[in-house]
Amino acid sequence: MKLKLTIPFCFTLISGYLMAQIPALDKVEPAFWWAGMKNRKLQLLVHGQNIAGSTVSLHYPGVKLAAVHKVENANYLFIDLEISAAAKPGKFPISFKKAGGKDLVYNYELMQRNHSAQWAQGVTNKDLIYLIMPDRFSNGDPKNDVVPGMRETGLSHDSMYSRHGGDLQGIINHLDYLKNLGVTAIWLTPEIENDEPHASYHGYAVTNYYKVDPRYGTNELYKTFVAKCHEKGLKVIKDLVHNHAGTEGWILQDMPMKSWVHQWPKYTNSNFRDAAVMDPHGAAADKKQMLDGWFDRSMADINQNNPYVQNYLTQNHIWWVEYAGVDGFRLDTYPYNDPAYMADWARKVKAEFPHLSIFGETLVWSVPNQAYFTQGNTVNRGFDTQLPGVTDAQIKDAIYEALNGKEGWTDGVNRLYNIVAQDFMYQDPTRNTIFLDNHDMSRFYSMVKEDFTKYKAGMAMLLTMRGVPQMYYGDEILMKNYSDPDGKVREDFPGGWAGDKKDKFTEAGRSKQENEAFDFVRTLANYRKTSTALQTGKMMQYIPRQGVYTYFRYDAKSTVMIAYNGNDKETMLDTGYFTERMAGFTSGVDVLTGKNLTNLKQVIIPAKTTIVIELKK
Amino acid sequence: MKLKLTIPFCFTLISGYLMAQIPALDKVEPAFWWAGMKNRKLQLLVHGQNIAGSTVSLHYPGVKLAAVHKVENANYLFIDLEISAAAKPGKFPISFKKAGGKDLVYNYELMQRNHSAQWAQGVTNKDLIYLIMPDRFSNGDPKNDVVPGMRETGLSHDSMYSRHGGDLQGIINHLDYLKNLGVTAIWLTPEIENDEPHASYHGYAVTNYYKVDPRYGTNELYKTFVAKCHEKGLKVIKDLVHNHAGTEGWILQDMPMKSWVHQWPKYTNSNFRDAAVMDPHGAAADKKQMLDGWFDRSMADINQNNPYVQNYLTQNHIWWVEYAGVDGFRLDTYPYNDPAYMADWARKVKAEFPHLSIFGETLVWSVPNQAYFTQGNTVNRGFDTQLPGVTDAQIKDAIYEALNGKEGWTDGVNRLYNIVAQDFMYQDPTRNTIFLDNHDMSRFYSMVKEDFTKYKAGMAMLLTMRGVPQMYYGDEILMKNYSDPDGKVREDFPGGWAGDKKDKFTEAGRSKQENEAFDFVRTLANYRKTSTALQTGKMMQYIPRQGVYTYFRYDAKSTVMIAYNGNDKETMLDTGYFTERMAGFTSGVDVLTGKNLTNLKQVIIPAKTTIVIELKK
Repeated sequence: MKLKLTIPFCFTLISGYLMAQIPALDKVEPAFWWAGMKNRKLQLLVHGQNIAGSTVSLHYPGVKLAAVHKVENANYLFIDLEISAAAKPGKFPISFKKAGGKDLVYNYELMQRNHSAQWAQGVTNKDLIYLIMPDRFSNGDPKNDVVPGMRETGLSHDSMYSRHGGDLQGIINHLDYLKNLGVTAIWLTPEIENDEPHASYHGYAVTNYYKVDPRYGTNELYKTFVAKCHEKGLKVIKDLVHNHAGTEGWILQDMPMKSWVHQWPKYTNSNFRDAAVMDPHGAAADKKQMLDGWFDRSMADINQNNPYVQNYLTQNHIWWVEYAGVDGFRLDTYPYNDPAYMADWARKVKAEFPHLSIFGETLVWSVPNQAYFTQGNTVNRGFDTQLPGVTDAQIKDAIYEALNGKEGWTDGVNRLYNIVAQDFMYQDPTRNTIFLDNHDMSRFYSMVKEDFTKYKAGMAMLLTMRGVPQMYYGDEILMKNYSDPDGKVREDFPGGWAGDKKDKFTEAGRSKQENEAFDFVRTLANYRKTSTALQTGKMMQYIPRQGVYTYFRYDAKSTVMIAYNGNDKETMLDTGYFTERMAGFTSGVDVLTGKNLTNLKQVIIPAKTTIVIELKK
Repeated sequence: MKLKLTIPFCFTLISGYLMAQIPALDKVEPAFWWAGMKNRKLQLLVHGQNIAGSTVSLHYPGVKLAAVHKVENANYLFIDLEISAAAKPGKFPISFKKAGGKDLVYNYELMQRNHSAQWAQGVTNKDLIYLIMPDRFSNGDPKNDVVPGMRETGLSHDSMYSRHGGDLQGIINHLDYLKNLGVTAIWLTPEIENDEPHASYHGYAVTNYYKVDPRYGTNELYKTFVAKCHEKGLKVIKDLVHNHAGTEGWILQDMPMKSWVHQWPKYTNSNFRDAAVMDPHGAAADKKQMLDGWFDRSMADINQNNPYVQNYLTQNHIWWVEYAGVDGFRLDTYPYNDPAYMADWARKVKAEFPHLSIFGETLVWSVPNQAYFTQGNTVNRGFDTQLPGVTDAQIKDAIYEALNGKEGWTDGVNRLYNIVAQDFMYQDPTRNTIFLDNHDMSRFYSMVKEDFTKYKAGMAMLLTMRGVPQMYYGDEILMKNYSDPDGKVREDFPGGWAGDKKDKFTEAGRSKQENEAFDFVRTLANYRKTSTALQTGKMMQYIPRQGVYTYFRYDAKSTVMIAYNGNDKETMLDTGYFTERMAGFTSGVDVLTGKNLTNLKQVIIPAKTTIVIELKK
């Protein structure tokens, strides 16, 4: 039975792919697993021509064949294994016998777990995340630029929708650059296979959950990339997409059952309204469309209420951590997922990897809408999402308002103050990822209209505020553009390609101002590495005074004062009001210039400038 | 000891009032009480020249003299009574004996409680509140316009800061007008004595907590006013000010102790930042200034941490309910009060009057800031304010955005949808008071730039949305003006004064359009009285479609569809999507026009218009 023929109402799933060509035993996923995982259950997805007609058997100490599920599509079997704590690493055959057919065997392996301290370390408030789109950062291996047999084989450095050839090797080649900049964690937009015919570079249309896109490298190279990062003290965040998948993927082309994806009588977009998920007055139809509607015609909405889907996704994500040792997950389009499944997913992932960090993309409208999705919040009554952190779009918008807005009761610097005050909505706001831009939005430097003073002011707030700061590749060399279309903010990092006219990975390749920007970020990012106040200290903020927004990061060892002057003119800030944090301190060091400040009573701050002062006794 | 001389740092308290004139037994407050109150404790404040030198005694079955407290100021005694359940109504002398002085006696009375069902009924979602400033509605008794001996004796109908002469009798005279309009509850801005030298009409600077301002009438007349309201099926809301008091009040002129009010080394305003109360990163100095800073030089900030103050205020408010039978409380400037005290206050008030309704004025910036103050919210971790409802400024702003804004992802009608969706922040949003204007803000009709279509659209939403709708006197006759200064929105109701050129309490006195406005409100307000869907039904809202914001109020008996067309042109709304609420209904009645609608599939809505349709099977 080929399901693609049984889904007349979901035309986008039908393509020219010939199902009849699949072999009798095409795939077993996960292809291997580990002994000693916390969760004793494992569900194998087996795909092969009419595999459902086979009888499955296996014999291995500690491994029990608990159940074999046949589903709508005879090309699938789902095999439930129970792996006891006593099961040792090793290989064992799983046999598939069919009356009148050829016996098939798959040699399954339980590997030894990696208990390295560097496995799944977690990315925290101590870190600085650097977001990279692998296709657009650096081409380290021209041999994989075009991979014959894949649906998109074009390569055009100049077309924003085409593949550019960036890859894992290109990133590996620049780890020292990042380390020097002060970055401590790298988040790649999905490096997973996206064998889509158009614009496959963006990575959010997975076609094979267990395979790194060949244009970026191999699974082994990804593992090497993580290992090399770890060697240099860098962490790695993997970008996961639970919500949707590329329609060209092999599973979607021959689905186990119709309910693998959300089906609609005719193509139906999500309404993209997170509010519909939380609205106590909301209509069921709005909530359903939000959660089950498709993101795009080429990205099917995965049905996370399907228990086979649940097992498949959860195991896949756990597999990648145990396989490669990644330190954190970023979850794409979080509000569109099934809440109950996502909580269950998070519980299972954390059970295996207690230190792994997780944050979800929540580009929503307000603090309540954002906090609703966070772990331990109190407003999502009686339900815990188990999602530790979110992308803090509210802080981003508030920093922009502080930089670009005009001061008013709730505008300008007061907006930022007010938004930070709303941290009472979170169990722990320091788990939020804070940022000024990413691959889906206009570049920070453009958003401040290329005002270099504002650029530095914003960067300084990003690197000193509560939360896990995240910058976007090229922010440090003043890359710019508005996200319309989004390809404009996904330009190549100059110097990442052989033959680039300028190599901005080097001081010599950067302009004077680009070096000034780079040095600014580097200075603060590296200071951050040494400052427990910034890494793990508390935050105290004051109601803006004299148009200046002042906050402190502090712990028992150190206190850092940060003050942003939102005025259009230099301001002499009277610090007498800040006794609670400044008492006992008599001088300070300007972290950005290294200058000593002997008079802390009045601090001169130029217009639209953020000062960062380490206080001294 | 005269405390006014011992507070050198609080100059505003010093005036020309001669303390030496107080008699040996000036005041006992509360002047009488009731047998059978839930709270067995009662603390009497006794004021008189050197009363602290007296020995207190009393003898009455069931009443125990538990303690007599001397305080800083010898002109006070605080007497703790314990009144057992067995104590019967009746009178008993309290004697004050002083060696070498004259014996003094105060005849105290425990009255019989009023157990009428009309006492403290509570104002709910079923009601429509009409807010009146007593000085500006109608002058029913010219004899009390000027009261000799009071600090402000000017009377000028034409000056916005002067007394105009409106009074309780004026309101009593127009109860039929209000009943006809469809109003079911009257909220008066404070009718309590405000014996201040300037702008005393506004009522928020109490000078005698136990006395109706003589310019409005007497305590007895207030009681009569409530009784007459109850006779006509109208409820009464009393406006309380915990936070501050007029500096000319007799207590403030001769304070029991310095800590009766918040003292500052020099005059210090509140910073008016509610965020400072809830900010987990907030500085103690900011929170202190928010809560303890003064509202105005003429309004002292009452210290609610002082246990004598606590008893005094709480008993006073309970006294007024038991005395006059008011049905609800509105609490002025709620966020400025001490949270722990306010919760304790609410618990004690509710213990006596379980049905009494309470809502607090929270003119804050966002739903989280507003919800933070509400009873049973989950964000004010581990602390319950016990405040059932708040003034829902967020709904007001969102309705304005729907009326005046341009549609965008979170603008125009979508703002309103989003704000209503944030109701997940409240334990019960139907306890919130919703409104479009009040005595502190620009008139609704002006805020829609006198666009009569928008006026009707907004009024229709006000009268059909979840929450307790509140209108402001004169809204029904299109009174207008911007609140700059606020006297502009506190103009007299035309017809309230003898000799007014037009009497807009009558159809003949109103213009054609004023009658149209009056009839619009009357039609909907009276329909509301008959509609369980609007009074107690649930609400369901849909994501705006075609620029139209659609919601339903419904219960098992009836369903009302409300749709506001935010577009600048007539829109034919396709209702096919609303199956969840419209299935089974085949026709409807336009509540505003009385017209039958036989085709519900497509509903034509003119630009900027709200339709209200009762659905029929």
